[in-house]
Amino acid sequence: MIIDIHGHYTTEPQALHLFRDRQLAGLADASRKPASTDLGISDEVLAKSVEPQRKFQRERGSDLTIFSPRAGGMAHHVGTEAISIEWTRISNDLIHRICTLLPESFVGAGQLPQFPGVSPRNCIPELERIVKELGFVGVNLNPDPSGGYWTDPPLIDRHWYPLYERLAELEVPAMIHVSSSCNPNFHHTGAHYINGDTTAFMQLIQGNLFKDFPTLKFVIPHGGGAVPYHWGRYRGLAQDMKRPPLAEHVMKNVFFDTCVYHLPGIELLAKVIPVDNILFASEMIGAVKGVDPETGHYYDDTRRYIDQLSGLGEKDRAKIFEGNARRVYPRLDALLKKRGHPGMKA
Amino acid sequence: MIIDIHGHYTTEPQALHLFRDRQLAGLADASRKPASTDLGISDEVLAKSVEPQRKFQRERGSDLTIFSPRAGGMAHHVGTEAISIEWTRISNDLIHRICTLLPESFVGAGQLPQFPGVSPRNCIPELERIVKELGFVGVNLNPDPSGGYWTDPPLIDRHWYPLYERLAELEVPAMIHVSSSCNPNFHHTGAHYINGDTTAFMQLIQGNLFKDFPTLKFVIPHGGGAVPYHWGRYRGLAQDMKRPPLAEHVMKNVFFDTCVYHLPGIELLAKVIPVDNILFASEMIGAVKGVDPETGHYYDDTRRYIDQLSGLGEKDRAKIFEGNARRVYPRLDALLKKRGHPGMKA
Repeated sequence: MIIDIHGHYTTEPQALHLFRDRQLAGLADASRKPASTDLGISDEVLAKSVEPQRKFQRERGSDLTIFSPRAGGMAHHVGTEAISIEWTRISNDLIHRICTLLPESFVGAGQLPQFPGVSPRNCIPELERIVKELGFVGVNLNPDPSGGYWTDPPLIDRHWYPLYERLAELEVPAMIHVSSSCNPNFHHTGAHYINGDTTAFMQLIQGNLFKDFPTLKFVIPHGGGAVPYHWGRYRGLAQDMKRPPLAEHVMKNVFFDTCVYHLPGIELLAKVIPVDNILFASEMIGAVKGVDPETGHYYDDTRRYIDQLSGLGEKDRAKIFEGNARRVYPRLDALLKKRGHPGMKA
Repeated sequence: MIIDIHGHYTTEPQALHLFRDRQLAGLADASRKPASTDLGISDEVLAKSVEPQRKFQRERGSDLTIFSPRAGGMAHHVGTEAISIEWTRISNDLIHRICTLLPESFVGAGQLPQFPGVSPRNCIPELERIVKELGFVGVNLNPDPSGGYWTDPPLIDRHWYPLYERLAELEVPAMIHVSSSCNPNFHHTGAHYINGDTTAFMQLIQGNLFKDFPTLKFVIPHGGGAVPYHWGRYRGLAQDMKRPPLAEHVMKNVFFDTCVYHLPGIELLAKVIPVDNILFASEMIGAVKGVDPETGHYYDDTRRYIDQLSGLGEKDRAKIFEGNARRVYPRLDALLKKRGHPGMKA
């Protein structure tokens, strides 16, 4: 079984965008506010909207995608906290409907109703709802709800602890994923995303978060940002700062996905990061949509790169494709077991 | 000849730090302002202060370092523009004295008196002084004078053009190098530096700066931030944005150094980035000061990694160690020729 742990709903029906326009227009002119949160999207339209993803699943050979709302669409910095809450519920409900319609293709991960300057404690009701009522197995946690100005505290600050407590109790891992950027310095997928990954990892080195939350798990997407390429720098910085070796200090709790869009990058990832910390993902129909003229294949067809890793044994390959995801996402593992997929032998 | 293009004066005498304390104390209490900008540092003390760098040059086998003030020390966001100007002149003057005392070991690159929200045009007098009077061959340009809040315009904005005009006329390349971070989210050497590199490169993809300045040259340090690891992403983003291939669009003007502190990272750099765009550097006694227990060698002894690149021919190795630096820094090349180092044959 091949599990893609990083997919966003980037093919939303136009009705969702129209709702968002009206929702935000309502900030300036209350008469424009949508009368209802019912988007009027039929199951048929919904299923059709994710046909591109399912086609790629079949063509590229992956089975199940952990599917969450469009990352750039979360836009926690826009509007008010109430707007963020409403928008989050609507976005999560759509994911839930898709996962209910097509359970063999998609399992849900949620957006959280974060807002800059507001305690992440306020996200707990929605977290409980998506996990307990909607059956989601993961969440996306935005380390910079300001959208590129980084005005909230670092991830190791106690500001975030109430949310971490619930994540740990619920056994839900968080993917650390920024949203769109309203800072003209940061292109969202070309700078802000990668910087967010790098920044989060360094914060975790600086703190001692996993002493307080030994079972909390973070997935750092986009291959861990700059981290594997600068693995010597991060090992050396931790050492200069008298932190334990990274294997003990953070790598029991932190995992990188494989959203790196060329073979040499994936080769580096597999060479320097322990195989138990690598989870297959493609973020298909995401940041980079084209075909690489150097290979004739889609940049984001990351399965091809993993398949080409010559030094990787079959057991390790299966860990990257399935075993690690089931270990990091215990609720996914339970779901798959219930469906008759026993999983890998230890 | 082996030229290390990236060294900062990180072993400054205590007198410089005392001056800086008094200078900044003077903001709150004018009576504490230093009476003079004469630091009272003797040539002997100055020469002794860079003995650690010269020892590493001998031990590791490099000849000449392009030497500039401590990057974190620039701290353009601190105080006022007048403070930045005074501090910049003092910092550059010390570099000049070192390069005059030890011309076989060091050649100067300068700090610029940037200040957040102020036109980079104001840096031109100091640029002219360090190039024409002090003989510096390069400058460090901070893409985020705010120190981690990124409130100035992107590098492709016309805001920066007056400075670019003078850099191009003077044939002085700029290393795009942030300074310290006053944003608690960004560890300075572990996040802000690497993010700065990644951000700058993506800005250059977004714009068309080198159409306006075809001879302007930028060095992106720390191995180009996250860029080589995500080279597929950047090629793909440029393609989605209908930009020309990166080779044409930016790589005639942008160069990466080799400050990547482990062999797999350097291997990746050499594999994906054209050899003509790679310049040897170590940033010794900088971000990472320790010895890697996995190798028994200093993390920042980057020459070892280049020496271990098995696929690299001698001519390409010489380009990385010397030839590219002389091409990117024409004033260095002229200086070396005058000193009887003719350089590589084309």
